[in-house]
Amino acid sequence: MSNQKRLEKSILNRRQLLQWGLIAGAGVAASSIAATRLLGKRSSVIIPPVPSASTDRSGMNPMSILRDFDYGTVTQENGRTVREFRVEAQTSTIKLDNAHSFITWNLNGRVPGPTFRATEGDRIRVVFYNRAGHSHSLHFHGEHPADMDGIKPVKNGSVMIYEFDAKPFGVHLYHCHVAPVTRHIGKGLYGMFIIDPPQPRPPADEMVLIMAGYDVNDDQKNELYAFNGLPHYYMKNPIPIQQDQLVRLYVLNMIEFDPVATFHLHANMFRVNQTGRSLTPSYETDVITMGTAERHILEFSYHNTGKFMFHPHQDNIAEAGCMGFFDVIGSKA
Amino acid sequence: MSNQKRLEKSILNRRQLLQWGLIAGAGVAASSIAATRLLGKRSSVIIPPVPSASTDRSGMNPMSILRDFDYGTVTQENGRTVREFRVEAQTSTIKLDNAHSFITWNLNGRVPGPTFRATEGDRIRVVFYNRAGHSHSLHFHGEHPADMDGIKPVKNGSVMIYEFDAKPFGVHLYHCHVAPVTRHIGKGLYGMFIIDPPQPRPPADEMVLIMAGYDVNDDQKNELYAFNGLPHYYMKNPIPIQQDQLVRLYVLNMIEFDPVATFHLHANMFRVNQTGRSLTPSYETDVITMGTAERHILEFSYHNTGKFMFHPHQDNIAEAGCMGFFDVIGSKA
Amino acid sequence: MSNQKRLEKSILNRRQLLQWGLIAGAGVAASSIAATRLLGKRSSVIIPPVPSASTDRSGMNPMSILRDFDYGTVTQENGRTVREFRVEAQTSTIKLDNAHSFITWNLNGRVPGPTFRATEGDRIRVVFYNRAGHSHSLHFHGEHPADMDGIKPVKNGSVMIYEFDAKPFGVHLYHCHVAPVTRHIGKGLYGMFIIDPPQPRPPADEMVLIMAGYDVNDDQKNELYAFNGLPHYYMKNPIPIQQDQLVRLYVLNMIEFDPVATFHLHANMFRVNQTGRSLTPSYETDVITMGTAERHILEFSYHNTGKFMFHPHQDNIAEAGCMGFFDVIGSKA
Ligand SMILES: [Cu+2]
Ligand SMILES: [Cu+2]
Ligand SMILES: [Cu+2]
Repeated sequence: MSNQKRLEKSILNRRQLLQWGLIAGAGVAASSIAATRLLGKRSSVIIPPVPSASTDRSGMNPMSILRDFDYGTVTQENGRTVREFRVEAQTSTIKLDNAHSFITWNLNGRVPGPTFRATEGDRIRVVFYNRAGHSHSLHFHGEHPADMDGIKPVKNGSVMIYEFDAKPFGVHLYHCHVAPVTRHIGKGLYGMFIIDPPQPRPPADEMVLIMAGYDVNDDQKNELYAFNGLPHYYMKNPIPIQQDQLVRLYVLNMIEFDPVATFHLHANMFRVNQTGRSLTPSYETDVITMGTAERHILEFSYHNTGKFMFHPHQDNIAEAGCMGFFDVIGSKA
Repeated sequence: MSNQKRLEKSILNRRQLLQWGLIAGAGVAASSIAATRLLGKRSSVIIPPVPSASTDRSGMNPMSILRDFDYGTVTQENGRTVREFRVEAQTSTIKLDNAHSFITWNLNGRVPGPTFRATEGDRIRVVFYNRAGHSHSLHFHGEHPADMDGIKPVKNGSVMIYEFDAKPFGVHLYHCHVAPVTRHIGKGLYGMFIIDPPQPRPPADEMVLIMAGYDVNDDQKNELYAFNGLPHYYMKNPIPIQQDQLVRLYVLNMIEFDPVATFHLHANMFRVNQTGRSLTPSYETDVITMGTAERHILEFSYHNTGKFMFHPHQDNIAEAGCMGFFDVIGSKA
Repeated sequence: MSNQKRLEKSILNRRQLLQWGLIAGAGVAASSIAATRLLGKRSSVIIPPVPSASTDRSGMNPMSILRDFDYGTVTQENGRTVREFRVEAQTSTIKLDNAHSFITWNLNGRVPGPTFRATEGDRIRVVFYNRAGHSHSLHFHGEHPADMDGIKPVKNGSVMIYEFDAKPFGVHLYHCHVAPVTRHIGKGLYGMFIIDPPQPRPPADEMVLIMAGYDVNDDQKNELYAFNGLPHYYMKNPIPIQQDQLVRLYVLNMIEFDPVATFHLHANMFRVNQTGRSLTPSYETDVITMGTAERHILEFSYHNTGKFMFHPHQDNIAEAGCMGFFDVIGSKA
């Protein structure tokens, strides 16, 4: 099925559902859930084996960050799901490449931090222990009360508990909000926060790609760029994906100093679901412009096998590290 | 009602109206008007009392600019509504902060200039008296004849009358179009121009927020930024809004030299109506990227009380003055 | 008919077609084709006479590039249409203005290169002969196999044949993908690639406008900008268009070094069809922000006669050459 067919079909399905809802006067939500169930179980998704994660001298592993979703420690309190996430702000040095070491401020030793994931309506509890040496905070996107907004610095050695309801569904983010924010984000204190809709999205190979910049000489410009923390990583370590399988990218632009980043996929188109705030994509392209903190769900399948690049279409950003390959593995191989 | 519900309901309503229209073969416009009337009168909107407008040493008052709509002097000519606006280009000095005085070119002493407002189909007559010392002009966005396009300089001491029909409905702008335009806009000669649709939009607390930059040392870069003219103003003077009430922001990016500005709202999502060219929003997010002269209607309600920031997610722009607070006042307070 | 009416009508038509399709359970495609046929023949489009193309000292002619679509040499192979395009990478010097000569890398002596055009499903064969002195390549946007992706340099003196199916319909582009790509694009190796949908779009005066920058002093910044290759050209040579006639612009931002370019039309609105991936536009505005390699179909008609500007609303880019006029000729003139 071509991308166009797929797009039209998805639009059609949505309209059909809406129409049924209008005619029946009722069952929009019910129909959607039924339709989703019919689509089958998530276990039908094939993820090709990933080359063994060589822990190189960088101390970072973007391949494991890619599909690593942190659902927290789950408990039930008064009949609802509570997800508790324990994170620690730390200071640690990573090797960006042979020439550049970089002191990061991070969560749990990771840049980007953990990808928190929940379902709309869950209760979120983030226990934030600041051991990074300076004041930091966690500001979440999404809805929450004013005192949970994370704009108040948390002193080194202190703990802050952020607690709120996960809403609305979509792709969100969190980052330190201590001024100068460009610096606190640029040093690594950010991550993705995914809230799934009550009825799950159709099965897909789901991945997180976060674009970021490194100002290694403190001149308020980035000299290096990366997907998921490490420059040039996915060029040397292409991401294996399955031919003809739906890929669902959660893409976030976390680059400071540059006004926007674009995201481009080679030899294919992707369907855009803006901020993940819809159950279906709204349009299709192969280059999208994203301001800092913008994030989207991008969906596509590759019908051809082989290696295909992805990168911002700002070639100075791409060639400075923000570039990678998908390696499409044949279904019958 | 959650934002998502609201968005779905609004999409539903639109589709329903269209559908009724299709079935009835006729009454789309009629149905829309009826639906709008059912929504109640604008007087049902509660605007919390605004702290008394202290005219400080700046000579500017962004709090009064915020909800100040200039409907002009209204007359009827040959059975139609004519709105006449009299404006004077002036040169005057404002105090941006304790360290920076700035010579502005402005309309009626205001930066931004007056927010002109009309209904689609009205006749617009702008009497422009240039007393600013240099040649200037007023170029309006929206439709109009070539000789009303405002690209011809109006000499100091001269009067030009711009006259045209207000169309199409949406959020537009006006600005001086004398070269170098970056400089004439950067000095303050711009404002918003709202054309309401024939059937009014649902009642809401409506506000204008215009982002602009100040190149105080004439290096073709901005050192200070502001919402509605004065850097850091809404940080010191949060905007009071009512809990659970619909807020309709008319947002314009008028920043020169920077390629884009983003707009971000804390702890909430907003629904985007691009250029105000639709009767309903089309998608929802909490960060939007806007090129210079782009403008949108952004709608939201706060369900939590307290102070919530808004600012571009380019933190160097935000921290240089383009940042503010909404102060959400409890409905039962 | 006002733009708003036109937009609503187009949305309505689409919905109607979908609805008929839903009700009939079948005939969406059939209905669309029928509707298109009813709209009449392309020959009904009036293109006002273009002032005789004076081949000035630049060696470039943006007026002829504007409406020049290269459909290739057409043959039938095994029952399908094959379009063969023969292009030669060359090095040649052009005069950008009286002060600036510029050595370009180009296709067939043109900057931008030829606008390749095909219908979805055609077979494309591009015979690329590199005689430009350095290694270059042609990377196409759109779908194709990995070995046709054009990321492998083609040595000077060599030939590479790119062959693939034209899909999906939309506005695409091609450019050299040899690093540093900013330089290879900035020197002129790019062009547009239009794939028409199986059922043609409604008749219109169709034009190509490609924005590009020239880094004349090799400082990684652009000093001059242009539409279709030559700075300031359409200011001196306004583009004649017919009053009340549908204009369909294929616009591409190919500016390197600047993060985005906006496109603004004076005294009018345009309807946006993102990446041309739909049969109908999705929203309306008069300023759009485009990252490098983004491209759209923009549609509009002028109801007033006379000269109207178009340019990025970044005035430093506009005033450095990326600015032009439409000259709307009266229907009864
Ligand atoms: Cu911090
Ligand atoms: Cu001026
Ligand atoms: Cu090249």
